[in-house]
Amino acid sequence: MSRSALAIVLAAGDGTRMKSDKTKMLHEVAGRAIAAHVADTVGRSGVDETVLVVGRDGEKVAVACAAAGRTIRTFEQTERLGTAHAVLAAREAIAAGFDDLIVTYGDTPLVTADTLNRARAALADGSDVVVIGFEADDPAGYGRLLVRDGALTAIREDKDASDAERAVTLCNSGLMAINGRRALEFLDAIGNDNAKGEFYLTDVVEVALAKGGRASVVMADAEEVLGCNNRAELAELERIWQNRRRRELMLSGVTMIAPETVFLSHDTEIGPDTVIEPNVRFGPGVSIAAHVTIHAFSHIEGATVASGSQVGPFARLRPGAVLHDDAKVGNFCEVKNGDIGAGAKVNHLSYIGDASIGAKANIGAGTITCNYDGINKFKTTIGANAFIGSNSALVAPVAIGDGAYVGSGSVITADVPDNALAIGRGRQENREGRAERIRARSLAIKAAKQSQK
Amino acid sequence: MSRSALAIVLAAGDGTRMKSDKTKMLHEVAGRAIAAHVADTVGRSGVDETVLVVGRDGEKVAVACAAAGRTIRTFEQTERLGTAHAVLAAREAIAAGFDDLIVTYGDTPLVTADTLNRARAALADGSDVVVIGFEADDPAGYGRLLVRDGALTAIREDKDASDAERAVTLCNSGLMAINGRRALEFLDAIGNDNAKGEFYLTDVVEVALAKGGRASVVMADAEEVLGCNNRAELAELERIWQNRRRRELMLSGVTMIAPETVFLSHDTEIGPDTVIEPNVRFGPGVSIAAHVTIHAFSHIEGATVASGSQVGPFARLRPGAVLHDDAKVGNFCEVKNGDIGAGAKVNHLSYIGDASIGAKANIGAGTITCNYDGINKFKTTIGANAFIGSNSALVAPVAIGDGAYVGSGSVITADVPDNALAIGRGRQENREGRAERIRARSLAIKAAKQSQK
Amino acid sequence: MSRSALAIVLAAGDGTRMKSDKTKMLHEVAGRAIAAHVADTVGRSGVDETVLVVGRDGEKVAVACAAAGRTIRTFEQTERLGTAHAVLAAREAIAAGFDDLIVTYGDTPLVTADTLNRARAALADGSDVVVIGFEADDPAGYGRLLVRDGALTAIREDKDASDAERAVTLCNSGLMAINGRRALEFLDAIGNDNAKGEFYLTDVVEVALAKGGRASVVMADAEEVLGCNNRAELAELERIWQNRRRRELMLSGVTMIAPETVFLSHDTEIGPDTVIEPNVRFGPGVSIAAHVTIHAFSHIEGATVASGSQVGPFARLRPGAVLHDDAKVGNFCEVKNGDIGAGAKVNHLSYIGDASIGAKANIGAGTITCNYDGINKFKTTIGANAFIGSNSALVAPVAIGDGAYVGSGSVITADVPDNALAIGRGRQENREGRAERIRARSLAIKAAKQSQK
Repeated sequence: MSRSALAIVLAAGDGTRMKSDKTKMLHEVAGRAIAAHVADTVGRSGVDETVLVVGRDGEKVAVACAAAGRTIRTFEQTERLGTAHAVLAAREAIAAGFDDLIVTYGDTPLVTADTLNRARAALADGSDVVVIGFEADDPAGYGRLLVRDGALTAIREDKDASDAERAVTLCNSGLMAINGRRALEFLDAIGNDNAKGEFYLTDVVEVALAKGGRASVVMADAEEVLGCNNRAELAELERIWQNRRRRELMLSGVTMIAPETVFLSHDTEIGPDTVIEPNVRFGPGVSIAAHVTIHAFSHIEGATVASGSQVGPFARLRPGAVLHDDAKVGNFCEVKNGDIGAGAKVNHLSYIGDASIGAKANIGAGTITCNYDGINKFKTTIGANAFIGSNSALVAPVAIGDGAYVGSGSVITADVPDNALAIGRGRQENREGRAERIRARSLAIKAAKQSQK
Repeated sequence: MSRSALAIVLAAGDGTRMKSDKTKMLHEVAGRAIAAHVADTVGRSGVDETVLVVGRDGEKVAVACAAAGRTIRTFEQTERLGTAHAVLAAREAIAAGFDDLIVTYGDTPLVTADTLNRARAALADGSDVVVIGFEADDPAGYGRLLVRDGALTAIREDKDASDAERAVTLCNSGLMAINGRRALEFLDAIGNDNAKGEFYLTDVVEVALAKGGRASVVMADAEEVLGCNNRAELAELERIWQNRRRRELMLSGVTMIAPETVFLSHDTEIGPDTVIEPNVRFGPGVSIAAHVTIHAFSHIEGATVASGSQVGPFARLRPGAVLHDDAKVGNFCEVKNGDIGAGAKVNHLSYIGDASIGAKANIGAGTITCNYDGINKFKTTIGANAFIGSNSALVAPVAIGDGAYVGSGSVITADVPDNALAIGRGRQENREGRAERIRARSLAIKAAKQSQK
Repeated sequence: MSRSALAIVLAAGDGTRMKSDKTKMLHEVAGRAIAAHVADTVGRSGVDETVLVVGRDGEKVAVACAAAGRTIRTFEQTERLGTAHAVLAAREAIAAGFDDLIVTYGDTPLVTADTLNRARAALADGSDVVVIGFEADDPAGYGRLLVRDGALTAIREDKDASDAERAVTLCNSGLMAINGRRALEFLDAIGNDNAKGEFYLTDVVEVALAKGGRASVVMADAEEVLGCNNRAELAELERIWQNRRRRELMLSGVTMIAPETVFLSHDTEIGPDTVIEPNVRFGPGVSIAAHVTIHAFSHIEGATVASGSQVGPFARLRPGAVLHDDAKVGNFCEVKNGDIGAGAKVNHLSYIGDASIGAKANIGAGTITCNYDGINKFKTTIGANAFIGSNSALVAPVAIGDGAYVGSGSVITADVPDNALAIGRGRQENREGRAERIRARSLAIKAAKQSQK
């Protein structure tokens, strides 16, 4: 698209019905602030500049949106005098002169780049104002888009609509594209002669038509332009986002046995022929290769999992977990900042933190890397083909050599050479008949307790 | 409401289609017997007395309903001769004389106090019988409510309905409010001249009208008056109950990323700006403060969690778990009857039972409080700022002092003074090259096994 | 049914939209290849022989179908020349001479034996071709079944349909029953004079009618004849299958608090009055008795659970796990090839592998059976009423006697006699004030690290 474009993301709305200590713009869908979804989408749509109009928590909103990978200028809307007033908070950016001006909302995170680009195409086709509309199952309460011969003739608010107009199901989403060369001319002409004394962006259609401009509509899915006023609506946005992304992944070759129980993050990547069993949650920063199995009840964030690996059930991969080809991390295991070598196995009840495990090593059930002394963290290194006996504690910093063998139940505090056996545990002693005496004593204690009641 | 009221909960229905060893009245929604939901609702609606009419498992039903916090008189229906007969099992209570009589069903647990009070208001307005009706999508099989000029003129059973009547979608839920001063007069006039020879409460409308009384309808949501005849319907009641309560909590400021995966108990309380991740189950007796994060895959019952705390993923809080401000209980941890001090951390693979942990203490991965000797339970006390090394076993009764430090892999059987270091573990020994010999021996064993096959 | 029948399962379809390294026929619903569902259903419907027509991965498809318990002959379709051509790949079987020929599809796994038998009954009634039809909400794209006076007169492809025909919502599922005595006569008469030059089975209706045969329709639910072309459709098949089986189990007396979160396997059996809490996944080979509670977040495969037992939450039962009456396996426990005696308890954080646990034994939190030396697996035996102290490691092969007592934190490498006490752990030593020095040293290390940054 050779036309230049500015996108404004209106993110000053506070959202009192969210009943939150933070602005609704920071509430998250798929692990990312809703406003950041919008900033990311407009960025990906190919605009030349994106600006944010912010209110409460403005700095945090700007940071969240920048984290979506875009440098974004921020304008503050200090008073709340309506949507047109909010757009004009970015007057300086608009005045810089762009062919196209796109107006989006920070709490409408599901809008697609395709829809925004269709709106821009309509500008290129000669429209001065392009309103993004949708078909409402129940249009009550929405502004209706009145169209004649393909041209938008008016936006009629529900309360002002005639019966015939009220039957119209084509509704105003609020999102718009405006001729950037005339945007300030239009916006400055919007008045506030209404009940609330606010400047409504909706009026830009009437203004533009009065000034000889042309207006039109492009359509979006109703789901795409849903906003968010309370946490039930936030959950609905999440649901739609998840369904969209789940479907994309399934169509690309990922099996999900119960897609509705797989919770993806905004950046989750999964390769084909990978199977995701029911009840898996992905936090941010996860990349799963092809031909992996993620078993049920797994919780994965900040992790990289190579081909042929198996994770779970009941596994947790935390940031910095890297599984090489054919590695296994099994039930009730946690890996944090840990490199699991090709074919290595951490199958049961283990904590692997700040550790590197060599290829084909076997980590027995209940193994703990003791990486923290309450103040510092230290590293554990385990060589290839090493065998760590069950219920061992490896006190970092410590290195276990290639092919070394640690006896079950050992506490390892010093390095173990390659192919050495290390044992660090008490010696067993049996005392015949002693269990009977223990029981007798315990029963006496119990009886004494009960007699005190 | 200055009028006096008696509520009767009909809970004698057995429910053979439940295919259960217990009466359907004891089957649970949101962790509470369905009959107890009804008893609780009528109690909260402000009636003066609630009575139960019971059949099988009557004593247990009475106990379950009393557990909902109301003292309730119980009448037994010894024979099953119809709903009017069931109501008359409580003749003694009705005869005591109330302005209003409400008839509810123990297997219709979703009825709201609001609906019952609207029915009572209709009595106050001059009706003698008020039937709670609902609009059915498919009315086939239901009794139709025939209304003229705002008055209920008849309840027509499906099989007796004319074609015109069959098209009526306003249906009888079975729930009613009756003029308490005339209730016995009406009920005693109901006959059993029908195919099954039963006394139907439905006939009270005809009787009342014949005696010059007035009848009317108040509406309820169809979901509100759903009953339960099999376990698929029980699951449907649970689903509706959960959706209702999830929505209430979300609107009050609780974030649920995937509300359909959060399972609440009848008494779960959660504060605003708390985030509940997907797949969390709450048993009874849980109170969660504001600004808490409950991570995915957590199972919480009988627990109190203070502000700023984090729970899970994969955490289990059992009865008596108390988390003070900013405490953390992490993955694969179980806390039972345990007090976790402010800022204390139990992050990985630990069992904390019958224990008290001081503020800012750090409990290493794999720590177990050994609270049970097979017969008695004993207490573990851990001081503020203590550090318990990973994979330690603390054998109760035992006290670890403030600021004390327990070495990883220790078994602690005696008290540790403040700021002392305690170590109780074997000393490590390395045997060079020995792992190779172990492997050789193991391979020989394997070969021998295989040659035997 | 005294008529003989041959069923052909067309399983040569490749499924490029699955984007998979294996044929779609091997993709699974309820833990079983979709083609194997069909083979199993036709087998259970009472046919005399079932044959498979296979393409890619033919041998694996045959093995998967045989695993459903039927011996099945396989024919390879080497070229892809249409469905009639596929059926004729099994010419040899058809020529053997059966009364009825049933044609099913390996990627249509939800068809029921009842529907197939109704189709066969229509053959017995005199039809030569019986097409299984369904009512489509949106028939666009499907072939329409044109019926007059109860007879099927034609199958009209969507692109060839008149406006009136396009309004027909009775559609062709593709599944058919054909007079086995005339099947080859009909099939050989099908031509390929069409755009793609393929031989379409659909044309068998036209051929049969032209040859004086009779055609008719039997109806199936639309869900029953759904096929599978991509993984989103595979997930939809899984969803329908699960809902069907969940409902069956609920109606038979199993409580599921949230049925949509319970994932069953094709062979899962559960007894009445058993409660399945939310989020439970069953792999193949599970049998659960009556009066069991499976708590939330459990993962169960290849296990047998007797009456009165409790499993979970957060429990994993793997193949060979057997729980006797009233046994308990609790949170963060894994049992593999383990026999848990009546009333025995494995309540917390344990790994029980290749082990036998006697009645009423108590396995303390964090117990690990060390069954694997990296090469061989060995067995652990624990006697009745034994008490294994928490955090113990039992190094197999090892036997703990009846009533024996293992001290917490022990490593047990030798057998323990009945009623003996075994202890194998280090002795605790306290060093006064030493924790302060450790902290001081750690803080110095931390400061040094930070100064290097």
